[in-house]
Amino acid sequence: MTTTHIDQVSVSTQASVYFDGKCISHGVTLADGTKKSVGVILPATLTFNTGAPEVMECVAGSCDYKLPGSEVWLKSKPGDKFSIPGNTPFDIRVTEPYHYICHFG
Amino acid sequence: MTTTHIDQVSVSTQASVYFDGKCISHGVTLADGTKKSVGVILPATLTFNTGAPEVMECVAGSCDYKLPGSEVWLKSKPGDKFSIPGNTPFDIRVTEPYHYICHFG
Repeated sequence: MTTTHIDQVSVSTQASVYFDGKCISHGVTLADGTKKSVGVILPATLTFNTGAPEVMECVAGSCDYKLPGSEVWLKSKPGDKFSIPGNTPFDIRVTEPYHYICHFG
Repeated sequence: MTTTHIDQVSVSTQASVYFDGKCISHGVTLADGTKKSVGVILPATLTFNTGAPEVMECVAGSCDYKLPGSEVWLKSKPGDKFSIPGNTPFDIRVTEPYHYICHFG
């Protein structure tokens, strides 16, 4: 079951543009103050770094990801989630646009 | 005065990806059912086609645009809006990411 919409949010009109536009996201704030982002990663292999811990939820497309200390690429498809600790680099490899919700904390 | 947030909306988690990712947008639905989108266009010169009439509101960055029947490129900066009739092609030229709200109808 994928999350197609997030209701009752305030959406930031300005996007965050990472890696020359290979990753684009918009911040959303829920009614209770919780912050998330919705975004898309275009075909590329990229290394991200978390600040706060993150949970990446795939809503369309797919990606492969590799966490620190692992040599294994794992696949994330619509409805799948994976967690990254805070202040941690991780790799994402995308061959079809990967649409995601990023949950923080 | 730029619109930094749109409040009390339902945001689509899946982006629309146009022109191989040169234009990325997320749909939002307001409490009264009005639909808009928030998006970004990366450096490129692109020809869009409207369905419904659109008003493009710049929230960050800038673009030049050219409407049908005109040979003149006009600049749109944060806080500026321009209108395009329905079923009409128009050109956008971007040299720094152009962040926008698209108002329909």
